[in-house]
Amino acid sequence: MKTAQPTLPAPAPVGYVGNKAAVLARLRRIEGQVRGIQKMIEDERYCIDVLTQANAVKAALEQVSLLLLNDHVSHCVADAIRQGDSDAKIHELTAAIERFVRG
Amino acid sequence: MKTAQPTLPAPAPVGYVGNKAAVLARLRRIEGQVRGIQKMIEDERYCIDVLTQANAVKAALEQVSLLLLNDHVSHCVADAIRQGDSDAKIHELTAAIERFVRG
Amino acid sequence: MKTAQPTLPAPAPVGYVGNKAAVLARLRRIEGQVRGIQKMIEDERYCIDVLTQANAVKAALEQVSLLLLNDHVSHCVADAIRQGDSDAKIHELTAAIERFVRG
Amino acid sequence: MKTAQPTLPAPAPVGYVGNKAAVLARLRRIEGQVRGIQKMIEDERYCIDVLTQANAVKAALEQVSLLLLNDHVSHCVADAIRQGDSDAKIHELTAAIERFVRG
Repeated sequence: MKTAQPTLPAPAPVGYVGNKAAVLARLRRIEGQVRGIQKMIEDERYCIDVLTQANAVKAALEQVSLLLLNDHVSHCVADAIRQGDSDAKIHELTAAIERFVRG
Repeated sequence: MKTAQPTLPAPAPVGYVGNKAAVLARLRRIEGQVRGIQKMIEDERYCIDVLTQANAVKAALEQVSLLLLNDHVSHCVADAIRQGDSDAKIHELTAAIERFVRG
Repeated sequence: MKTAQPTLPAPAPVGYVGNKAAVLARLRRIEGQVRGIQKMIEDERYCIDVLTQANAVKAALEQVSLLLLNDHVSHCVADAIRQGDSDAKIHELTAAIERFVRG
Repeated sequence: MKTAQPTLPAPAPVGYVGNKAAVLARLRRIEGQVRGIQKMIEDERYCIDVLTQANAVKAALEQVSLLLLNDHVSHCVADAIRQGDSDAKIHELTAAIERFVRG
């Protein structure tokens, strides 16, 4: 994406470009939560409490994925549909949802 | 746990105590993966590729949770059962599994 | 949907209309699997074997949901995008994906 | 299980034996819900409404699995632990939880 030639039309921005700062802020918070779990392990905190924190990180990560999915449909998939060339994009989207659902 | 009085019997170690280094190593790798996703967002990498990485982190996190669950059953729950006092422990375990499954 | 007035334009068919027979066939197989689990319970089959079957049903159900999601995006959401009126549709879709992922 | 010889000690009952009627009642309700979804497909009901129902069935199925898991730990796993022979049982349990979590 960084290698687009200046004489070519600019590539379409990624779907989440308008939410970039919000997505990054969430990911930094997730990074902090992961470090928090490391600290819990070092301190030998109770297993179930560690699991609860791990679930919180998983949920936060899923929220990021849902945000990205939403932006992806609103922009990338919507553009492909408007250009009449959406089959591959929709197949790719469903495959991504499947991987998301099935872990 | 750090505050146990020296005159009292030592508290039972947490279930994962024997896997502490392995769990920490996995969590450090997960932390690195989360930073990798931040870099992908900064570089405006394609939405679906970011989602794929987010799924990889989710799967890695689930592996840590499964490791902790396994150690918890093998030690904490097993001890409670041997001491004839397992109802609360088993209820707590099932509740943890439910939160784990339902995100 | 059955109450559309004859003088009005026919409502858009649902997204899965072309896959109706396939979706129904899958749902009938799922119904049979659920009855199979009832039989396992009546026969007092081993807990873990019952769980394995329950997981198989869950996976089969998720496949139906993914098929419906795919058809929904390909038709209903795509139509809304082409008509320039897609915000509500995309929000609805992401909410459905969220419920799907989080159980 | 039905083939246990009368001269041998009776096999341990499955963990859910005390909840058999409740589990069966839930499975019959799930069977009815699956038939309800078939009816929705035949009536060409809106995709998102069908997905919502499919999620409800998935959640009901997960509740049955959690009930079975709870009974399994309370009885089968607890018995194995009391008999000092729990490693295989706990490994089997964690594998079942993993399949449950990962669909």
